[in-house]
Amino acid sequence: MNLTEKLISSHLISGNMIAGKEIAIKIDQTLTQDSTGTMAYLQFEAMGIPRVKTERSVAYIDHNTLQTGFENADDHKYIQTVAKKHGIYFSKPGNGICHQVHLERFGKPGKTLLGSDSHTPTGGGIGMLAIGAGGLDVAVAMGGGAYFLAMPKVCRVNLTGSLQPWVTAKDVILEVLRILSVKGGVGKVMEYSGKGVKSLSVPQRATITNMGAELGATTSVFPSDEVTKTFLEAQNRGEDWIELSADADATYDEEITIDLSQIVPLVACPHSPDNIKKVKEIQGLAVDQVAIGSCTNSSYTDMMTVAALLKDKTVDPNVSLVIAPGSKQVMNMLAANGALSDIISAGARILECGCGPCIGMGQSPATNAVSLRTINRNFEGRSGTKSAQVYIVSPETAVASALSGKLTDPHTLGEAPLVSMPAHFMVNDNLIIPPAPEGETVNVVRGPNIQPFPKNTKVPKDVDGGALIKVTDNITTDHIMPSNAKLLPYRSNVPYLADYCLTPCDPKFPARAKAAGGGFIIAGQNYGQGSSREHAALAPLQLGIKAVLAKSFARIHMANLINNGILPLVFVNEWDYDSIRLGDEFSIKYAADQIKSAVNGQDVIVTHLRTGAEIPTRLNISERQRDILLAGGLLNYTKASN
Amino acid sequence: MNLTEKLISSHLISGNMIAGKEIAIKIDQTLTQDSTGTMAYLQFEAMGIPRVKTERSVAYIDHNTLQTGFENADDHKYIQTVAKKHGIYFSKPGNGICHQVHLERFGKPGKTLLGSDSHTPTGGGIGMLAIGAGGLDVAVAMGGGAYFLAMPKVCRVNLTGSLQPWVTAKDVILEVLRILSVKGGVGKVMEYSGKGVKSLSVPQRATITNMGAELGATTSVFPSDEVTKTFLEAQNRGEDWIELSADADATYDEEITIDLSQIVPLVACPHSPDNIKKVKEIQGLAVDQVAIGSCTNSSYTDMMTVAALLKDKTVDPNVSLVIAPGSKQVMNMLAANGALSDIISAGARILECGCGPCIGMGQSPATNAVSLRTINRNFEGRSGTKSAQVYIVSPETAVASALSGKLTDPHTLGEAPLVSMPAHFMVNDNLIIPPAPEGETVNVVRGPNIQPFPKNTKVPKDVDGGALIKVTDNITTDHIMPSNAKLLPYRSNVPYLADYCLTPCDPKFPARAKAAGGGFIIAGQNYGQGSSREHAALAPLQLGIKAVLAKSFARIHMANLINNGILPLVFVNEWDYDSIRLGDEFSIKYAADQIKSAVNGQDVIVTHLRTGAEIPTRLNISERQRDILLAGGLLNYTKASN
Repeated sequence: MNLTEKLISSHLISGNMIAGKEIAIKIDQTLTQDSTGTMAYLQFEAMGIPRVKTERSVAYIDHNTLQTGFENADDHKYIQTVAKKHGIYFSKPGNGICHQVHLERFGKPGKTLLGSDSHTPTGGGIGMLAIGAGGLDVAVAMGGGAYFLAMPKVCRVNLTGSLQPWVTAKDVILEVLRILSVKGGVGKVMEYSGKGVKSLSVPQRATITNMGAELGATTSVFPSDEVTKTFLEAQNRGEDWIELSADADATYDEEITIDLSQIVPLVACPHSPDNIKKVKEIQGLAVDQVAIGSCTNSSYTDMMTVAALLKDKTVDPNVSLVIAPGSKQVMNMLAANGALSDIISAGARILECGCGPCIGMGQSPATNAVSLRTINRNFEGRSGTKSAQVYIVSPETAVASALSGKLTDPHTLGEAPLVSMPAHFMVNDNLIIPPAPEGETVNVVRGPNIQPFPKNTKVPKDVDGGALIKVTDNITTDHIMPSNAKLLPYRSNVPYLADYCLTPCDPKFPARAKAAGGGFIIAGQNYGQGSSREHAALAPLQLGIKAVLAKSFARIHMANLINNGILPLVFVNEWDYDSIRLGDEFSIKYAADQIKSAVNGQDVIVTHLRTGAEIPTRLNISERQRDILLAGGLLNYTKASN
Repeated sequence: MNLTEKLISSHLISGNMIAGKEIAIKIDQTLTQDSTGTMAYLQFEAMGIPRVKTERSVAYIDHNTLQTGFENADDHKYIQTVAKKHGIYFSKPGNGICHQVHLERFGKPGKTLLGSDSHTPTGGGIGMLAIGAGGLDVAVAMGGGAYFLAMPKVCRVNLTGSLQPWVTAKDVILEVLRILSVKGGVGKVMEYSGKGVKSLSVPQRATITNMGAELGATTSVFPSDEVTKTFLEAQNRGEDWIELSADADATYDEEITIDLSQIVPLVACPHSPDNIKKVKEIQGLAVDQVAIGSCTNSSYTDMMTVAALLKDKTVDPNVSLVIAPGSKQVMNMLAANGALSDIISAGARILECGCGPCIGMGQSPATNAVSLRTINRNFEGRSGTKSAQVYIVSPETAVASALSGKLTDPHTLGEAPLVSMPAHFMVNDNLIIPPAPEGETVNVVRGPNIQPFPKNTKVPKDVDGGALIKVTDNITTDHIMPSNAKLLPYRSNVPYLADYCLTPCDPKFPARAKAAGGGFIIAGQNYGQGSSREHAALAPLQLGIKAVLAKSFARIHMANLINNGILPLVFVNEWDYDSIRLGDEFSIKYAADQIKSAVNGQDVIVTHLRTGAEIPTRLNISERQRDILLAGGLLNYTKASN
């Protein structure tokens, strides 16, 4: 078996390991961050389970740390108290980015980790099967439920050679992105192996697995070896190490080979992580801002390298250099050994440990500015400035450019500094609050930003309602539930968010849906493409949406609709879309019976009351999903199963 | 002479030093911050003067450092380039809070400093006459114009004894606030003298003069003595020192005596800096947040004390402790000597050097939270959370409380740490960008957030217009020009802000004013009370407001209207207010002649076209203000005078 198969088979609860088929795996650890965590814990509470059943669940605060209104602090306090009550470790704001801290303090080779953040695969750097998922999936996992996914293909990434000076792990993953593109990992686990592996440190491996998310991969994984052991020992966690690797005769669905010694400093140009050029190809580009940090490049060794390169130098007068260390551990070590002083002396702006610029949470560049960042995504507008040009680079390229004011290959800095892994990290977990031994007496604090989320009910006899909105093809989750600095603080307040649901398509939709007491959404092709945010299902549910009739659905959004008990119906005949007008009324008679038959491929008939037509639709669901829909969503289904 | 009289007389350009009479003084230095600076530099540019005529002008970036959209970075880039062009030193974001950095690097005993920030009196800690003013006044001063003010009374604060352990400069100024209240300093300079002075370090003195702003004082000032000399020498600026003190036989308008040895740790309770209690009186209050920093308490010695108290301890699990050092110099020294590591180890969140929580720019507490802060103002809602309860305390009380989770007298910590002033500060001005030697070729960068501000014209023959809004008594500048996290980024974009002008009173006012092409505002008593923001005059000017007819005006707002060429007319007969309806048309015939006569006490007649009545009004202005109004504002007046 390859390593991926070993990790899956040791956690397999149901299904067969045949690529594309649904399997269920046991989840050992979970993590949440604060922008998805509030909803995950509200959902966990709704399941009525007193204490998490995982080996370790951790709630991190790293996204909404600017706190420009009461909402963020309300969320933090809610998460802290709900975590204390239900057996979850709480990482206080200031302790750092979930993925960095989890790698340092909690991750274990051979374990499964489900996180409500798409960069959870960072844990693959120490041989975990670490997968990003929606908050409800994480809530179910905390409650002891399995995680269901399609068995991925396994793509071996055979690493040969070793990195040349000034070439980094960031350049490795940018090279993989260049070869495979942002769609190249869909449905796959990227499994790194080969002789080049042992030359990479844990932070380097974690940079690579972290940004595997940009390939669209299910996750990425490295073996657990002596390098892993040394890292865990330096974190006082030697006992957490086990050795893990693929069998010598393992087979893979796909394979690519990367010769590390051939890689040069690379840059992902606007506006996609796979828009790769060599730094040398576009060097000289004037730079306005340089941001170093994010879960991809904020480790101790990254920051020590940055400090060594900045020592006794000064940032270009026209560049704003901002640095956010990844964790309290990293920042503390830099402050203790003088490296932080070197960074400050050079003129860097020091930000709190957290996601910060990477998610557009502050440090938005000026209009049309060129911003070099060590982050993982450079989508248009993600920085908070629509017209900004964001380039993704390594910390080394970032520093070289901050000093010169122009995009600069780090080779121009002369001899590369020697930064080694510390024999002992500074271990001090005093910002990690353990849960109460007995949660019963803990009072969960709910400020006014913590609002009950919508809950569905069992499918009624007939599902009736009107066409509340009719939208065209390729509607994204950004249309369905806009996400920006104005709305991000309200992720725990679905009633508030619902007033913005689909408003980019029709500002009157929320009011119309409320007035009607709910109804149907009519949509074209590829409805719900884009991010995985489950708020794109929760907000419609809040507005009483019972079904979406579409020509086709994006995969993850369809799963989110099912998880919330909303019927994702696909027109059998696309021309029926044309026959529907805003306000038309529909009825799905004997809905439960029709849903049951749908699993066997039978049409679900939607009666169009104005025309009297019987519109045939399909529900492309598994038997498990059938039961979820009948129960009125995954939460009800899970409660009933427990 | 007392010290205040010496400072004023050595800079007196016109007027006599008789309390309450208008005088004009020469300004040696200016400073701006970024929330008021953009407008000040736009106004300076409009004056057409190629280079500042001050001895030293510095543009700081410290307010809008979160950058949640392009607007802040646009402003920073504009300020950087306009400063370079016109002879102004530019302190980059990350270099620290204007008052802290100015004290460290630029302030000089015996000099005058005008700053577009109300806490400019911090400079009084080293014997400067340092005054806060509106941006236009600062622009005029940069152009070489005098600063006009009413000659203040001088209140001697006679300090005797010396502070007991655990009692701080913050407690001294809180004691003064307890005695005098927030109105106690209006029209006065607080001049500190007596045997207790020499026991106070420069940072302690600066804490006291800084928060003299909360007394409503014109400014506060300490003598320049050996303590000052040692401080400046430690900043490599020994040559900037001169000795300064009151004559032995100096007289004062008022005097109070404070025995330093009798002061105990104090706290200003919500929601006013003069709502003083002893810490012991309310100790035990559960605390949710502790914020240490701001221009009042972010010096090296403050932070070293904080570090000493936090060393080897841990912040209470239920407290979020945030610390923002005042300047790069402070942060760099803490990072170099290990103190920052002690602070981080204890679990503090480290924020960028800047104003931060003090101005509600981030770190808003949770709903109903108790927040202890070392800042200067605890007005309701200023933290960004309307329901938060903000208490002002010393850094020592702040740390004691952060450790215990409850408001705690620092005496409970045992023996007070010994923190001494450093013999040499770490001097590194690489974040201060000097201006170009020749500014002609510098290109000023104006992103889309930098919009031209409105300019008035000479008074026309007749001033005609309709009543565009009629408001009641006590309208504040927060009504006229709301200021919050949503609108603060637009301080350089008056056309944008104007759409929010007076909208708390009438959301349709901006549209109505635009449709009418401008007109009149009708108001009751005390119109324009509150903050000094000149945007409360600029936004009406943008909408074409020509005159405000009110029962009475707040003093500073009236000055701002005059500076912008808007007539502040006071009803002679208050009942005329009742006769006016929305939409009524008015005409002020031969306006220039009437304004000229007004200086001699004659009425300005406003013809009420609907009723035909001649409404008598008064213009309470000096001859200088008459000329400003005739010219269409201070900018036009200054340009004509140059």
